[in-house]
Amino acid sequence: MIENKILLTDCPDDKGLISKITNICYKHQLNIIHNNEFVDFETKHFFMRTELQGIFNEETLLTDLNFSLPEKTNCRLISAKRKRIVILVTKEAHCLGDILMKNYYGGLDVEIAAVIGNHDVLRSLTERFDIPFFCISHQDLTREQHDQLLAEKIDEFAPDYIVLAKYMRVLNPKFVARYPNRVINIHHSFLPAFIGAKPYQQAYERGVKIIGATAHFINNELDQGPIIMQNVINIDHTYSAEAMMKAGRDVEKTVLSRALDLALHDRIFVYKNKTIVL
Amino acid sequence: MIENKILLTDCPDDKGLISKITNICYKHQLNIIHNNEFVDFETKHFFMRTELQGIFNEETLLTDLNFSLPEKTNCRLISAKRKRIVILVTKEAHCLGDILMKNYYGGLDVEIAAVIGNHDVLRSLTERFDIPFFCISHQDLTREQHDQLLAEKIDEFAPDYIVLAKYMRVLNPKFVARYPNRVINIHHSFLPAFIGAKPYQQAYERGVKIIGATAHFINNELDQGPIIMQNVINIDHTYSAEAMMKAGRDVEKTVLSRALDLALHDRIFVYKNKTIVL
Amino acid sequence: MIENKILLTDCPDDKGLISKITNICYKHQLNIIHNNEFVDFETKHFFMRTELQGIFNEETLLTDLNFSLPEKTNCRLISAKRKRIVILVTKEAHCLGDILMKNYYGGLDVEIAAVIGNHDVLRSLTERFDIPFFCISHQDLTREQHDQLLAEKIDEFAPDYIVLAKYMRVLNPKFVARYPNRVINIHHSFLPAFIGAKPYQQAYERGVKIIGATAHFINNELDQGPIIMQNVINIDHTYSAEAMMKAGRDVEKTVLSRALDLALHDRIFVYKNKTIVL
Amino acid sequence: MIENKILLTDCPDDKGLISKITNICYKHQLNIIHNNEFVDFETKHFFMRTELQGIFNEETLLTDLNFSLPEKTNCRLISAKRKRIVILVTKEAHCLGDILMKNYYGGLDVEIAAVIGNHDVLRSLTERFDIPFFCISHQDLTREQHDQLLAEKIDEFAPDYIVLAKYMRVLNPKFVARYPNRVINIHHSFLPAFIGAKPYQQAYERGVKIIGATAHFINNELDQGPIIMQNVINIDHTYSAEAMMKAGRDVEKTVLSRALDLALHDRIFVYKNKTIVL
Repeated sequence: MIENKILLTDCPDDKGLISKITNICYKHQLNIIHNNEFVDFETKHFFMRTELQGIFNEETLLTDLNFSLPEKTNCRLISAKRKRIVILVTKEAHCLGDILMKNYYGGLDVEIAAVIGNHDVLRSLTERFDIPFFCISHQDLTREQHDQLLAEKIDEFAPDYIVLAKYMRVLNPKFVARYPNRVINIHHSFLPAFIGAKPYQQAYERGVKIIGATAHFINNELDQGPIIMQNVINIDHTYSAEAMMKAGRDVEKTVLSRALDLALHDRIFVYKNKTIVL
Repeated sequence: MIENKILLTDCPDDKGLISKITNICYKHQLNIIHNNEFVDFETKHFFMRTELQGIFNEETLLTDLNFSLPEKTNCRLISAKRKRIVILVTKEAHCLGDILMKNYYGGLDVEIAAVIGNHDVLRSLTERFDIPFFCISHQDLTREQHDQLLAEKIDEFAPDYIVLAKYMRVLNPKFVARYPNRVINIHHSFLPAFIGAKPYQQAYERGVKIIGATAHFINNELDQGPIIMQNVINIDHTYSAEAMMKAGRDVEKTVLSRALDLALHDRIFVYKNKTIVL
Repeated sequence: MIENKILLTDCPDDKGLISKITNICYKHQLNIIHNNEFVDFETKHFFMRTELQGIFNEETLLTDLNFSLPEKTNCRLISAKRKRIVILVTKEAHCLGDILMKNYYGGLDVEIAAVIGNHDVLRSLTERFDIPFFCISHQDLTREQHDQLLAEKIDEFAPDYIVLAKYMRVLNPKFVARYPNRVINIHHSFLPAFIGAKPYQQAYERGVKIIGATAHFINNELDQGPIIMQNVINIDHTYSAEAMMKAGRDVEKTVLSRALDLALHDRIFVYKNKTIVL
Repeated sequence: MIENKILLTDCPDDKGLISKITNICYKHQLNIIHNNEFVDFETKHFFMRTELQGIFNEETLLTDLNFSLPEKTNCRLISAKRKRIVILVTKEAHCLGDILMKNYYGGLDVEIAAVIGNHDVLRSLTERFDIPFFCISHQDLTREQHDQLLAEKIDEFAPDYIVLAKYMRVLNPKFVARYPNRVINIHHSFLPAFIGAKPYQQAYERGVKIIGATAHFINNELDQGPIIMQNVINIDHTYSAEAMMKAGRDVEKTVLSRALDLALHDRIFVYKNKTIVL
C-alpha cells in the first residue's frame, strides 16, 4: 500500500549524511516529496526532515538507516496521518475558538479528542462543535493532585499533542516530564519580555510600542520553553492594557494555530531548548 | 440621562472650526472623551470625530452647530450603542466564523441579526451560535431578482451595516445605492492588485512574495470601493495557490473583523472614494 | 511675518480644554494646520499638539493660555524650524550612515552639527559628508571625566537633541540630567527583552523567532527610558548571532531615523516614563 | 586548494535526484555546507542549491553530474567569491546611498565597479565613496543609442549583476536580452499594483492603506519581470503622495539591498518568470 511518511533524522554532523539518507530511501524505492535539512554549525548537529512516498518496509528502512548513520542518530518514521490533540483551557475563548473553528471548516487537519477546563466556562462553546468537554476543577486540590487528574483524563485519549489554549495555571514538573515536547503553550507576549502574569499590564506600564505572542513547548521554567513561533503588532500610547488585550487576541490565536499546524505536520525538531522548523 | 454619543462633522476647511465645535459642546456641558480631526489639504476638507458624554439636547445641539459652521457641513450625532449587522455569505466559513466567535466571547460588540447565504452550506455553523440563517438561492433568478430578495430580507432587520463575509457574487447598482457606505466587503488580495476572481491563483501565477486582504465599502465598480483596511503576509516560492488560500484566511478574517470594528465605532468617514479613519 | 509654530500643551484633564486652547488661537488669528490631542484616562492627563500658522505675538499668546488653563499646565511654543543635533558613535557605521545619508539627500530635515566618537573609526565616513568629527577617547578617564568632556564638546554646538547612534557606553546620571528627554538611543532588541550587552547573542541563545530594535530617550536605568519607536523582523533557526546582527542593522537604523524624525517635528511628549506621539 | 563553491542544479523532477547529486559530491570528497532543494509540483521541476567546500575538480564534477542526471539538467558551479556590480541611477539618492553605505561598512559583500547616471546629480555622492561615476546623458539620443552606450560602458567592467537603483528609464529589449536575469530593478509599489509611472501618486489616489516596494529582474514588459522580494508598510489617510514617497524610501532601499544580497549569494533561480530563492 502506498503511504506518505515523514522521516525525521538528527545526529552529530558528518560528511555524506544527506547522501547516505537519500540513498537508502532511493534503494527502498521511496520517492522524496519534500526534503529539508539544517546543520547547526555551533553545536555541529545535523537535522533532516524527509517526506517520503511509497511502500514502506519500516523495520528494514530504520535498520538500514541506523546501520549507515553515526552512532548517536535519532531516526523517527512518522505516519503522515491526522494527529489527535487534547486542549486545556481556563476561561478565555479566543484561542480555543480559533482551533475549533479551523477544525470545523477543515483549516486545521486534526482530531480534537477533548477539551478540558479547570473552569466550566467554555463547555458550551466546545459542545457547540460536538467536542467533549470535561471540567476538572483545581478547587481544594494541590497542584500535584490536579495535574494528576488532568494527566489521567488526557491519557484516556492518547493524544499526540496537548495544547494549552490560554490555560492559566503552571503545570508541575511531573506533568511536564510525562509529555516531553508535546505540550504547546501560547504566552501573550513576545518572550522573553513580560514573563509570567499579566503581560499586557506589564507592557502597558513599560510603554512599549509593540505587543505580541509566543507559542512554545513547555518545560520546567515558566515561559522558558523552546519557542516555536512569535508574532507582534504595533500599538501606540492610545492603547490601555485592556485595548492591548483585545488587539492581542488575534495575534495569540493565529500564532498558536500556526505553531500547532507545524507540530501536526512534524516540522519541529527540539534541540537544546530551541526549535528547528523544517 | 447621561449618554455617550459620537459627533461626526465634515465640511470645507475654514479657520476656527475646532474652536467653534468644541465651544458649542462645552456650552452644552458635554464632556469630550476623545477628539480626532483631520484636514485633507488637497481637497481642503475638514473631518472631526468627537466622542461626547453628558445629557444631550440633540436638536438644539445640531441647530447650534449648523448655525455656526459653514453652509455645506455634515453633522451627524450617533448614539454610541451596539450596532446591528446582517452578514452575507456563500460557502467559506472563516470570515463568518471569526465574527460569530468574536461576537460570542464579547470581542466584537455587535448584534448579528441574521446570516444570509446564497447556498445553504453555512447554516449549521451559524445556528450553532443561535443566529438565524436564511438561504436565498440565486438559482433560476436574475441578479436583480436575487438582490431584490436579499434586500427585502435584509430590511426586515434594519441593520446598521451589511457585511459580505466572502459573499462571492457581485451586487447590482440598485442594491449598492440602497445602502451607501454601509456594505463592507473583504477581498482576498491587497487591492488594487488582483481584482476580481481567484486572486490567489493570480498571485501564484505572478509569483508575488506577499499576499494580503482588503476590507472596503462596495461601490458600483468591482473591488474599487473605498478601502478601510489592508494587511499582508510574506510568502515564498513554496506556496501553491492552495497554500496561499490557507495562509490567507487568517489575514482575511482579521482584516474584515477589524474593519467592521472601526465601522461599529463610527470611526470611518468616506470622502471621494477614500476613507478617513479617526 | 507669517510663521509656523508648534504649540505643545499638557495639563491635568479638565472640561473644555480643547475649546479654550483653540479659541485663544482663533482670537490670535492663528490658523490650525494640524491638531492632535490625547487624554490618558489612567493618569487623567491631557496632551495636545497644535501646528499653528500666522503672525505670532508669543508673549501674549502664552499669557492668554496660562491664564485660561489649569494651574499645572505646560505650554511650549516651538518654532517649526530645522533642528540641530550632535551624534555620538563608537565603531558601528550603519545608524550614523543612515542619518548622514538621509540628511545628505534631504530625507531628514536636520543640521548635524558634529559627530563625536569615543573611537576614531567613523571619522572618515563622517568627513565624507563634510560634517566635523571629534574623537574623545575614554582611555585613561573615569566615566565622569569622559562624560564631562563629551558634554563640554556637545554644548559648544547647543544642539536640540543628542543622538546615540550605537554609542556603546553608559552615560552617567549627571550627563543624563543635563539633557532631559533630549538624548535618543537605539537599542538592538525589542525592549524590555535583552537589556544590556550583546542582545543578538542573547536572542540567539534564547532561540527567539523575531528580533528587533527600540529607540528611546535615555534615563538613569540601562535601557529603561521612555520608548519612542520599536520594530521587529522575523528570523528562524538558520540565523546565527552574527546573521541576526547583519539583518538587524536595517531595523536599527530605520527605527532610529524615524524616532529622530518624530523628535525633530516636536511630536513626542514624555510623561511618566512613556511617550505620547502626536 | 580548499575552496567554497555553489552548485546550482535544476532539471525535470525525477526519483533519486538528491541522492545522485549528493553522492557525486561525496565521492568528490566535497563537504556540503548548506543544501536546499525545492520541487515545483505544478511544473514538475527540481531545483537544488548546494554550498560545497573542498578541492574542486570542476570539469570532472560537472561531467559526473551531467552523466548521472536527466538530459535537460542545468548544472552551474559558481565560485563563492565577491561579485562585481554596476549601478544605474537617475537622480534619487536613497537606494544608491544604501548600497554605497552598506558596501562601505561591510554590510554588503560586493565590488561596486561603477555608477552610471543618465543625469549627473549623484556624482558627488558616489565619488565620496571613491567609486567611479559616469554620466551618460540620454539627451538627443534615441533609446537604442542611449542603451547601447550604457551597455558598452557596463561591459567595460564585466559585472555579474546590474542594479537599477531608481533608474527611471525603460531599457530596450536588446539591452534586456544582453543581461538575462542579471538586471535587478526596484519598483516603488507592491507589484502588480501600480505598474508604471508615479506609483505613490496612484496609491494616494486609490486610497490604499499599505504601500510597498518590489525588487525584480527586468524583462521586456514594464514591471512584469520575476519578483525577488517585496515588502510593505502601513499608511493611513494622513499620508500625502509626498509623505508616502518619503516613508517608502526606507522600504525601497531595504528591499533592493536584500534582493541584491540574495543574488550576490547565488540564491535565486529564475524559472517561468518566477523566482525560487534557496
